[in-house]
Amino acid sequence: MSAKDSKETKKVKEDKDKDAKVKIERRDVDFSRWYTDVIASADFADYSPVKGCMVIKPYGYAFWESYQRILDKMFKDTGHENAYFPVFIPESFLKREAEHVEGFSPELAVVTHAGGKKLEEALVVRPTSETIMYDSYSKWVKSWRDLPILINQWANVVRWEMRTRLFLRTTEFLWQEGHTAHRTHEESLEEVLKMLNVYKTFAEEYLAIPVLAGIKSQNEKFAGALNTYAVEAMMQDKKALQCGTSHDLGQNFAKAFNIQFQDKDNSLQYVWQTSWGVSTRLIGAMIMCHGDDFGIVAPPRVAPVQAVLVPIWNNDEEMEKAVSTCNRIADEMKKHDIRVKVDSRDNLKPAWKYYEWERKGVPVRIEIGPKDMQKESAVLVRRDVREKIFVQQSEIIPKLKELLDTIHNSLFNKALKFREENTFCVEDWNSFTEGLETKGGFFKAPWCGCPDCEKEIKEKTLATIRILDKRAEMGDKIQGNCFHCSKPATAVAIFARAY
Amino acid sequence: MSAKDSKETKKVKEDKDKDAKVKIERRDVDFSRWYTDVIASADFADYSPVKGCMVIKPYGYAFWESYQRILDKMFKDTGHENAYFPVFIPESFLKREAEHVEGFSPELAVVTHAGGKKLEEALVVRPTSETIMYDSYSKWVKSWRDLPILINQWANVVRWEMRTRLFLRTTEFLWQEGHTAHRTHEESLEEVLKMLNVYKTFAEEYLAIPVLAGIKSQNEKFAGALNTYAVEAMMQDKKALQCGTSHDLGQNFAKAFNIQFQDKDNSLQYVWQTSWGVSTRLIGAMIMCHGDDFGIVAPPRVAPVQAVLVPIWNNDEEMEKAVSTCNRIADEMKKHDIRVKVDSRDNLKPAWKYYEWERKGVPVRIEIGPKDMQKESAVLVRRDVREKIFVQQSEIIPKLKELLDTIHNSLFNKALKFREENTFCVEDWNSFTEGLETKGGFFKAPWCGCPDCEKEIKEKTLATIRILDKRAEMGDKIQGNCFHCSKPATAVAIFARAY
Repeated sequence: MSAKDSKETKKVKEDKDKDAKVKIERRDVDFSRWYTDVIASADFADYSPVKGCMVIKPYGYAFWESYQRILDKMFKDTGHENAYFPVFIPESFLKREAEHVEGFSPELAVVTHAGGKKLEEALVVRPTSETIMYDSYSKWVKSWRDLPILINQWANVVRWEMRTRLFLRTTEFLWQEGHTAHRTHEESLEEVLKMLNVYKTFAEEYLAIPVLAGIKSQNEKFAGALNTYAVEAMMQDKKALQCGTSHDLGQNFAKAFNIQFQDKDNSLQYVWQTSWGVSTRLIGAMIMCHGDDFGIVAPPRVAPVQAVLVPIWNNDEEMEKAVSTCNRIADEMKKHDIRVKVDSRDNLKPAWKYYEWERKGVPVRIEIGPKDMQKESAVLVRRDVREKIFVQQSEIIPKLKELLDTIHNSLFNKALKFREENTFCVEDWNSFTEGLETKGGFFKAPWCGCPDCEKEIKEKTLATIRILDKRAEMGDKIQGNCFHCSKPATAVAIFARAY
Repeated sequence: MSAKDSKETKKVKEDKDKDAKVKIERRDVDFSRWYTDVIASADFADYSPVKGCMVIKPYGYAFWESYQRILDKMFKDTGHENAYFPVFIPESFLKREAEHVEGFSPELAVVTHAGGKKLEEALVVRPTSETIMYDSYSKWVKSWRDLPILINQWANVVRWEMRTRLFLRTTEFLWQEGHTAHRTHEESLEEVLKMLNVYKTFAEEYLAIPVLAGIKSQNEKFAGALNTYAVEAMMQDKKALQCGTSHDLGQNFAKAFNIQFQDKDNSLQYVWQTSWGVSTRLIGAMIMCHGDDFGIVAPPRVAPVQAVLVPIWNNDEEMEKAVSTCNRIADEMKKHDIRVKVDSRDNLKPAWKYYEWERKGVPVRIEIGPKDMQKESAVLVRRDVREKIFVQQSEIIPKLKELLDTIHNSLFNKALKFREENTFCVEDWNSFTEGLETKGGFFKAPWCGCPDCEKEIKEKTLATIRILDKRAEMGDKIQGNCFHCSKPATAVAIFARAY
């Protein structure tokens, strides 16, 4: 702390008071409250005066920028290009695909007036862009040589939700939506699974969130798709969170929007389409998968700040030395592409800085105090397990690189172990309901495949099918009877309560 | 051309027919038609079924991605962070700043219904985000220690325009809007000019567009600002295009939204604010500043494709060799961070490929044919002056790097010369109107500083003040009388017809 300014003492007290207000509820007491608390205390986001909309604050938005940078590269490496389509969709467009309009109608925001006049046709603020994009595709596609179309869009979308929750379910959210068109179903299906795998890779290798990837039941598919595939993760409250979807649209939209091409044999064919998306919801997933009672725990590969250097001093002379050492080390780290910050604020005690960066989930904190300055040493503190590691200053960079990988793996393995320990095989209704009520988690069960049966299960327990087991998708024979209705089972389904 | 497939001949004919349809009007015949033609022929954008909205196609969007990448780095290097605020603004918010609502009211798109119900308060789709952002700022700012706030947002905005034009004026457009809050007017003014300079640097050093930077007249300022500063460029039809604005908002919004802080001396003060933005309009500026009768001419530093390699062959064996050589060279170029494409399509003759890449404005085309393969040579063709340069294949990369800089400088100097040749000093009304009608261009004239006089000039000639000369801004004494109303001049103004 600087000795310069005697007013600072008062300031520190104020900050202490302010800090005391940043109380985070314990996860085991009230998970939902904990979630709201950690977001506020880490300065991720705020509710806005517009009902259900959120303000993504700079620190929260920096995570979205990390996600975008990584995903955008993955999309481009798999041959996709970005484009931009209008935010407004004529109401009549949505109605062209029957299931699609039925699925989205209750959630639409509608522009009825513009430029001071009532519009002849009302415009919908896009809830998703299939209809407006495919109207263009129908003009662009003439021959098989125009295929495939591999387009992605980064955009804001609006779905009027009654119950909202920061990042997980907001009236407006940010996302990317890929929309592709292909010559054959074989090709489009390959695309669907390729992008599902991109999402799995992103979740696991960058967010350190283990996911199950698979097909959805017909009740849970996207409105207008033949089939929806999804990646699903388990949160720390044992509920499921859908982390991304990839839709096999078949020729449903191609027929509704007349997207036809002349094939190699001169015949006129409809294209086969896919769409796939992930959203700012993935920020919520990261928080609920890794956070602890001290705040956010950011996975190192997406953390906007991977390490924070905190210089410690007792007087002005020590301050100058410690700060300049930290700045020098930080410059060196930047050359190694490590995202680093030096916290040299002179109005906060080191302990208050520690708490703040802990709340923000920065993977590694590096403390350099007067004794470290003498011994050219430093203390590294892991955010995830809060372990201290003592190193020489010259070893910081290699040690840090190693630590960032260690933390990633540790977060992933911990989450995987948690999911495995909370996934249960059940064969009868009683074990399922008892397990769901007493333990929660994922429940694998033989299921008849009937939408009405699924609906009844949902009504009774609030649990839904997150994905179907691969064997079912492959057409393999399933043993036993449906755990709910006792008809012969046609699939193994994973049931859970979900966000 | 591949000998594999005899059907190809028919295909080439089809492409030729298709190509013949891509007719570009000459600039000197109809500049406006030329503009529409080059955009269509380069696959930049399309009108959408929603009136006034556009679809930015992948190749056009790739330019926006270049702009974003460069500008985002410039914003971050000057200390700004990104965030995201809601697309919807409560109608009442806009009304809090009187000039602001008056300026934007006629252009608003209004959501009256959502989730199947009429909303209690209508929501406006943001035409700009001052009001929704500053509502948050008022909650975030308590002490001078919370300042400055330096936030930027990349977003879509909507202004209902009667007459629209691709990129220049569309109902929805993409932009960035910076919104900052400061302790003093001195600081906020420094920010205004700093960001104006960022825009000037971006226009000149990346887009190769020379711009005049200066202050706007009170008639032309942003609705709600104290003063607006702008960068203005001359297009090839001698009209002006505003390429970016930076607003000194004073304390107008701070008072309307009650953004107050406790200053160092414990007094309660209103913050001083700025906002600044550039949009997809800059794509139109680039097209109209550099394009020629063959199509787009892309400035090298923002071109998504800086060089295209076109292998030429007479038979399959030659094809394989030429394509693999081009791929090898392209891989080498990518290591040097050159953005390159190999056009190895086997259904198009080289000449058709040349036309296509010319229309798309790729700065350098590299042709490698059978003779080049023997002599290990290549032909480089500059897009801007269409000059051929013969080199050894081993020299391609250094030569290309040099050429990309040469082209940038050449484009800039050509545009600068054009602007200088078409900027005239006038001291009386007759010279002005005659010059405007016969030659067009920018006209520097002594002006009284009176809004009514400016309004009359606009009504009579459609010319507006683009910026005021710096001397006026500095308070220096101006010689002579107003060229229009003959009252004593208080400023030198630059008049032009503008987009």
